[in-house]
Amino acid sequence: MSGSTVDPAGGAGYSTVSFLSDYGTSDEFVGLVKAVIKDIAPHASVIDITHEIPAFDVRAGSLALARSIQYLPSGVVLAVVDPGVGTERRAIAVEVAGGAGVVVGPDNGLLASAVAMAGGADRAVVLDRTEWHLEAPGATFAGRDLFAPVVAQLCNGVPLDELGTPIDPDLLLPGVVPVPREEDGGLACEVTWVDRYGNCQLNVGPDDIEVWGDRVRLTVDGTPRSAAIVSNFAAIGAGVALVIDSYGMLAVCADRQSAALELGLSAGSAVHLAPLEDGDGSSPAVRVSLRDKPVA
Amino acid sequence: MSGSTVDPAGGAGYSTVSFLSDYGTSDEFVGLVKAVIKDIAPHASVIDITHEIPAFDVRAGSLALARSIQYLPSGVVLAVVDPGVGTERRAIAVEVAGGAGVVVGPDNGLLASAVAMAGGADRAVVLDRTEWHLEAPGATFAGRDLFAPVVAQLCNGVPLDELGTPIDPDLLLPGVVPVPREEDGGLACEVTWVDRYGNCQLNVGPDDIEVWGDRVRLTVDGTPRSAAIVSNFAAIGAGVALVIDSYGMLAVCADRQSAALELGLSAGSAVHLAPLEDGDGSSPAVRVSLRDKPVA
Amino acid sequence: MSGSTVDPAGGAGYSTVSFLSDYGTSDEFVGLVKAVIKDIAPHASVIDITHEIPAFDVRAGSLALARSIQYLPSGVVLAVVDPGVGTERRAIAVEVAGGAGVVVGPDNGLLASAVAMAGGADRAVVLDRTEWHLEAPGATFAGRDLFAPVVAQLCNGVPLDELGTPIDPDLLLPGVVPVPREEDGGLACEVTWVDRYGNCQLNVGPDDIEVWGDRVRLTVDGTPRSAAIVSNFAAIGAGVALVIDSYGMLAVCADRQSAALELGLSAGSAVHLAPLEDGDGSSPAVRVSLRDKPVA
Repeated sequence: MSGSTVDPAGGAGYSTVSFLSDYGTSDEFVGLVKAVIKDIAPHASVIDITHEIPAFDVRAGSLALARSIQYLPSGVVLAVVDPGVGTERRAIAVEVAGGAGVVVGPDNGLLASAVAMAGGADRAVVLDRTEWHLEAPGATFAGRDLFAPVVAQLCNGVPLDELGTPIDPDLLLPGVVPVPREEDGGLACEVTWVDRYGNCQLNVGPDDIEVWGDRVRLTVDGTPRSAAIVSNFAAIGAGVALVIDSYGMLAVCADRQSAALELGLSAGSAVHLAPLEDGDGSSPAVRVSLRDKPVA
Repeated sequence: MSGSTVDPAGGAGYSTVSFLSDYGTSDEFVGLVKAVIKDIAPHASVIDITHEIPAFDVRAGSLALARSIQYLPSGVVLAVVDPGVGTERRAIAVEVAGGAGVVVGPDNGLLASAVAMAGGADRAVVLDRTEWHLEAPGATFAGRDLFAPVVAQLCNGVPLDELGTPIDPDLLLPGVVPVPREEDGGLACEVTWVDRYGNCQLNVGPDDIEVWGDRVRLTVDGTPRSAAIVSNFAAIGAGVALVIDSYGMLAVCADRQSAALELGLSAGSAVHLAPLEDGDGSSPAVRVSLRDKPVA
Repeated sequence: MSGSTVDPAGGAGYSTVSFLSDYGTSDEFVGLVKAVIKDIAPHASVIDITHEIPAFDVRAGSLALARSIQYLPSGVVLAVVDPGVGTERRAIAVEVAGGAGVVVGPDNGLLASAVAMAGGADRAVVLDRTEWHLEAPGATFAGRDLFAPVVAQLCNGVPLDELGTPIDPDLLLPGVVPVPREEDGGLACEVTWVDRYGNCQLNVGPDDIEVWGDRVRLTVDGTPRSAAIVSNFAAIGAGVALVIDSYGMLAVCADRQSAALELGLSAGSAVHLAPLEDGDGSSPAVRVSLRDKPVA
């Protein structure tokens, strides 16, 4: 959450809503959330982070939100991946960064990592004041009926504690962050995200394996490869490499091709990294060809 | 169409355009419509309802627009699903809600249900004043060349009757609303919409079948199931149920799965609802298993 | 690039950013570019042209941008299809139309056709002043870390020559425009674009084949067809025809069906056009049926 255009907080409202969901764009869901916000807070503008989080995938939404939050302008952040909509799961609003931002969404772990990235929760409320919500013919579209009007009221300067009942932020559902573990002389890692281009972000950064040099052994499904650590896609050449990605993490990438397709990786896949062994790069077991082009 | 932020009508213009189409987002069509509006009416902002209406599917567009209109802020509503573009089909603008809104699009039935939902047409014009349109090298992109400049001029406060020739709203093409019919001791219904999550909205509301209790017989392709009527997805448990959806209609849903995939349903599919019979729930003919998990 | 709402140029800034990329919308890439722009230049609004340019496809992006630019409002145009990101390829900003617009993106041929359509480059800079860029943990997301802050500063009125080092526009990488060539008594053409509806734009306009009359011989994969030249989709009837599309080019189209699917065409496919021969329209070799419906 950037502070360079800090909206006046403490009741003076916000002008920007950053919005992430698993609503997709084939239906009118995203449009109606924006319509309700515009109707109540005409001055607010909405930035779509993405709405293509896989349906019901709280973990993928949580990771995308955590990757994004440091770049979002001050204002309200609305995140909705909400398979428990209409049940007893709580809807919450969490103030962060000294009032520079309020993160709004279901209390199902979706918001936790992003709130932590923004410096932690200053205070939080459960959005249980139904007088601020739309009257709804059904209970399944909280984005339109609960979150949108509350977000708009935050933009209009209604104080957080008028929108709901205060709750100890420590009681909110924590997120789950996958941590690599030491195994077989290396690190058992996990693909946290496959992007549009097929780049596969891992839950490990370059510092974690710096001592292994600029080339490591990368093993997927029992097949080891020698993989260079490089800083851009063109430096990969043939085959795959580990690229330091735009979030500072290591990603398995190919140049102008999908590494996910090449290696059969998807979010959650296991990838093992280890130092190159003496024979690596020369022994047949490690000299791996990809589409019949030998990796140098 | 909400009236809570009524723009001044009668020539004073509008600030919001709500936009639905079958243009998709893989081409520049939506972007160019917005570019033309911005160029002529820089103060106007555009809300995308959805642009993923299936290509040429006037009925699907009509239903999405009708579901949406009550939530749209006052202003212009532009809807374009227009397989007859460039022919003699008329382009129209219809004023609704005492001037709180103007609904613009082709006169092919697309607008009818939404206009009815907004309280009916106050007045309408055929958009035949070509001096307001862009000069176009071809006749196939009315969104950019005709609708966008007209919508922008409405935002700028140009009166409706300067943009076209008045027409009796009763002469506009009506929409087609699928109505359930009584059959075999129950109701022959139709799937009107399958959303991103695979929820299948039916053309029947809970009041229509209230007398049958909280569980009914749901038959698809000759296979009967016992289906509960519930208010949220988590209450479904295994199998499928009828959920009162966010528009107050009944929808065939599964919990965190696609009911459309489970039952092979798509928009237009037939679904039969009937009261549970005495033996239902116990006889083998009605005890239905779904993916080998018995429905309680 | 339209001049009807010319922003004051020469340091006074811009209010609109038109944005095209191959980022897709399944990740947060587009959202973060907008977030950074909003953070630095809160007054600027962004119009999405499209973000579904096929990944890495500089040619497709170049053509879409060239088709679009004449309709964009004055302001900044940001285009990013950038497989060479992080390498020595240059990032550039090109002023056009007497300062009515600045076109920003990688110097890889993506911008060339659009700049030419806008009247050519007035002046250009290489965006090498890193003090205007975001500090980035990796080199792979120039959209967020380089282009977005530079675009925002242009909106804020920072002069072009403070953002980078002037370069002779003649030294920028040219684009490649496919030109039809004479062959076998006709024209060997190419599909430049297949849109959402399956319409296949060719690199030839109606003037180029006007002397052949209102019906021509269209050959795909060795199979000739008689194809009418018409002005809208409904006039096609059964089979395919050449429609004068909304950009004034000829496109192979079917009525409410995908011509691309019917004929197996995609971007880059070869299509041969020639005058109808005497026997055409009557001989079995040219009377072609499509889905068993004879073309009249």
